[in-house]
Amino acid sequence: MTRMADGSVVSNEDRVAGGGLLHRRLLFGAGSMLAGAALVAPRGALGAANPHDDSPPSMLKPGATMRGYGQPSPYEASVQRGIGRPLPEIAPGTGVSNTPLQYMDGFITPNGLHFERHHNGVPDIDPKTHKVLIHGLVQRPLTFTVEDLLRYPMVSRLVFIECGGNSGRNTAKEPLQLPFHMVNGLLSCAEWTGVPLGLLLEEAGVDPRGKWILAESADAAGMSRSIPLEKAMGDTIVALYQNGERVRPENGYPARLVVPGWIGNINVKWLRRIKVTEGPTETKDETSRYTELRPDGKAWQFQLVMDVKSVICRPSRGLRMSGPGFYEISGLAWSGHGKVAKVEVSADGGSSWAEAALQDPVLPRCLTRFRMPWQWDGAPATLLSRATDESGNVQPTRAKWMAAYAPGQFYNYNAIAAARIAEGGEVFNAYV
Amino acid sequence: MTRMADGSVVSNEDRVAGGGLLHRRLLFGAGSMLAGAALVAPRGALGAANPHDDSPPSMLKPGATMRGYGQPSPYEASVQRGIGRPLPEIAPGTGVSNTPLQYMDGFITPNGLHFERHHNGVPDIDPKTHKVLIHGLVQRPLTFTVEDLLRYPMVSRLVFIECGGNSGRNTAKEPLQLPFHMVNGLLSCAEWTGVPLGLLLEEAGVDPRGKWILAESADAAGMSRSIPLEKAMGDTIVALYQNGERVRPENGYPARLVVPGWIGNINVKWLRRIKVTEGPTETKDETSRYTELRPDGKAWQFQLVMDVKSVICRPSRGLRMSGPGFYEISGLAWSGHGKVAKVEVSADGGSSWAEAALQDPVLPRCLTRFRMPWQWDGAPATLLSRATDESGNVQPTRAKWMAAYAPGQFYNYNAIAAARIAEGGEVFNAYV
Repeated sequence: MTRMADGSVVSNEDRVAGGGLLHRRLLFGAGSMLAGAALVAPRGALGAANPHDDSPPSMLKPGATMRGYGQPSPYEASVQRGIGRPLPEIAPGTGVSNTPLQYMDGFITPNGLHFERHHNGVPDIDPKTHKVLIHGLVQRPLTFTVEDLLRYPMVSRLVFIECGGNSGRNTAKEPLQLPFHMVNGLLSCAEWTGVPLGLLLEEAGVDPRGKWILAESADAAGMSRSIPLEKAMGDTIVALYQNGERVRPENGYPARLVVPGWIGNINVKWLRRIKVTEGPTETKDETSRYTELRPDGKAWQFQLVMDVKSVICRPSRGLRMSGPGFYEISGLAWSGHGKVAKVEVSADGGSSWAEAALQDPVLPRCLTRFRMPWQWDGAPATLLSRATDESGNVQPTRAKWMAAYAPGQFYNYNAIAAARIAEGGEVFNAYV
Repeated sequence: MTRMADGSVVSNEDRVAGGGLLHRRLLFGAGSMLAGAALVAPRGALGAANPHDDSPPSMLKPGATMRGYGQPSPYEASVQRGIGRPLPEIAPGTGVSNTPLQYMDGFITPNGLHFERHHNGVPDIDPKTHKVLIHGLVQRPLTFTVEDLLRYPMVSRLVFIECGGNSGRNTAKEPLQLPFHMVNGLLSCAEWTGVPLGLLLEEAGVDPRGKWILAESADAAGMSRSIPLEKAMGDTIVALYQNGERVRPENGYPARLVVPGWIGNINVKWLRRIKVTEGPTETKDETSRYTELRPDGKAWQFQLVMDVKSVICRPSRGLRMSGPGFYEISGLAWSGHGKVAKVEVSADGGSSWAEAALQDPVLPRCLTRFRMPWQWDGAPATLLSRATDESGNVQPTRAKWMAAYAPGQFYNYNAIAAARIAEGGEVFNAYV
C-alpha cells in the first residue's frame, strides 16, 4: 500500500504501468476497491451540522414549465462546436466546426454538437420538393420523394463519422497548442436510421456492368464522391433520422448517405442523385482533394476506410489538472474495419503501457469510450493511447505515419497522439 | 405469387400471418427479395429526360455558415414534445410533455425531445453552488460539488426511462382518440454517463443497518423516492451526461439518478441528497402517488421494475395510411428485467401472429426497435404487438391487466395496445 500526497491509498498490485496508471478493474462497479481512497478529497464530513437546514433557492419557488423542444442549460452555453477560420477565398460557407469532445462523455454525439464540414455552406432544402434520383447503369431510372423514402423499410446504424482531415493538424512541424477539439473534433457518432441503399438500387435494377456509384449532393459545391458498388449494396444507408429525429440541416437534411467506417465526405449529405457507373467518376472531391501524396511522388486515392485510431479526450490541451490525486483518463477509440479490440494507455511517454477499460457496448465502426484510472503525483507526465482493432490493426506512431506520406499531407492521419502534463497542471499537445 | 392492387408482387411463402404480414427476412439487407416489388410506387422512370437539367435552387447559391450549436430543420418545426394540460390546481409547473415517437425512428431519443414529468417545474440550479450530500447510516457523511463528481470514474448506460403513468390513458373505458404520443410518449431512451452511486456510497461507508436509500430532488416539489440499497449499489448512476452532453435542465441538470429499468420518477432529477436508511421513508411520492390499488382493496407499493412492453409507433393514431401497398410496421419494445427476446405482431386483431425483426444492438433495459413488413390491402385491419423478454415475461392483454387492478388505477400499464386501420386509411386507438 502507498499513501499518496493527497491522503489516498493505493495498493501496489493495482499499479499496472509507470507514471501512476492503475488497473482498470478499479472502474465499473468495483467501487469497493477504491473505497476509503478519498478519491477527490470531498469537502469534508458534515459532523454535527444539520443537513435539513440548507434548502437551496431552487426549492423555494416553482420552476419553469414544459417546453416543446428542449435546449442545453444556460450554464453550459460555452460548450459549442469550435468553428474553424472561414475560408471565403475558397468558397462562401466552406470550413469546419468541431465537436467539443473534451467537454463530453459517453460515445453518442448529441445532434447540436455533431461536427460540420461544408464545401459551400448548408443548403436550405424543402423536403416537399426534394427528390433523389437513381440512374446510370440501371434497368429503370427511379426518382424518390422524401415521402416515398419514408415508406421504405428502415435499418439503424450506430456509427462514427470522421472527416478525412481530422487530427491532420498534428502533421505540423511543432505541436499546435490549440484546444483539443480544434485538432481532433472532426469526429462524431450517432444512431443513423434510413433505407438500405442496396434496396433502392435493386429496385432500379443494377446493370452487370455497374461496379461503382457516384453520389451527388444538392449543395452549391456539388459535392460528389464515387463509391464501390459492393459497399453501396452492403451496409450503406440513405439516412433520414439522426439520433431518433430527422437528420439535421448541417448533416444533410432531408437525406444523406451513411457509409459506415468510411471517410467522412463519402457520407454524402443533401443526397440528390446516385448514378451507377463502370468505374469511379474522378470528381474534384476525389482527385484534387481527399487524396494523399506519397514520398515517392505517387498518390493514394480512394483510401476510403478510416483506420484504427484513438484519442485521449481528458486530460487534454485546454483543460487543466486541479492538483495531484486521482483522475480518470477518458478517451475514444474507433476503426473503420470493425470493432475496437483493445486500447492501451501510457503515462510515461511510452515506456510502459497498460490496458484501458472499454465501455460496453463495443460496436463495429462505432466510437468506443475507454477509461483508465490514474493517480497523478504532480510530476510532469506524458499520456498516450494506442488502439488495436479486431482485425489486428494497430494505431501507428507519428514517425511511422509521417514516413508513409509526402511532406504537407494530412488526410487520414491516425497516429498515436500525446498530451504532456506540466508541473502545475497545464496540458500541452505533444509529439513523441 | 400474388399481384397486389398496386401492382406489387409478393410470394405466398413470404406471408407469415393474416392481414398481409410478411416475413421479417424481407428487411435488413435482403433487398433482393423485395426487388421489383415497386414498394411504394416510385414516381416513374425518367425515360429520356435529361437528369442534368434539373439543378435545384439549393445548388445555385451558397448555403448557411457553421453554427456553434445546431437546431432541427425549420421544416420539422412541428415535431415537438406534446405538452399535457397544465394542472395549476395541483402545483405550478406540474405536468408532462410527451416524446413524439410516431415521428421518430431508431431507439435514441434526442435530448430536445426527451419526455418531461415535473411536479413543480424545472428548477434553475447553478452548478457552481450545487452540492450532493450522502448522509444517514454512513460512517462519514460526505458532500460533493459538481466539480468533484466530474473527477470520479464514469460509466455509461444506454437505457430507457418510462414514466409510471405512461399509456395509463388506455385504462379509460373507451379508447381515447388522442395522437399516439399523448398516450404512449412518456418514454425515452438515452446514453446516460455518470458516477456509479455505489462508489460514492462505499466512500461514505454504509452502516450494516442501512438497507434502503432516500433520494431527494432540489426541485420545489421536494420530489423524493426510496430505493433498495442493493439496486443503489448495483447499476444505479449519478448521471452527469445525457447523449454525450451535460444533462439537460428538464432532465435533472446538473445531476440525476439513473436507475436502469425502474419506474421513471425513481430516477430522481436535480439530485440533492442521498440518505441511507433502515427501511423505505414512505414519502408522499411513494404513498399517495405511484402506488396502485388492487381489486381486493389492498395496494401495490414499490412496484419498481417496469414490466415488459411494446408499442407500434407507426401506423398509429394521428397518422394516416396513404393507400394500399407496402408499409413497414415500426415500434419499440423494452423490459426493466433485461433484454427483449421477441416481439410478435398481428394484423388481424390477434387471430394470427408473426415475429418481427429486432434491430441490433438489443441491449438490456434499453429500447429495442422492431420492424415488420406489411402489405396492406386497403381493408380494415387491427394491428397489435406483443413483447416477450429474456426472463420469459410476456406482455399481458388489456383484460388481464385491468383484472389485476381496482377501477381507476393507471400506473405501470403495460398491456398490449391496438391500432385499428379503417377503410380509407384513418388510424384509431382501439381495445381488443
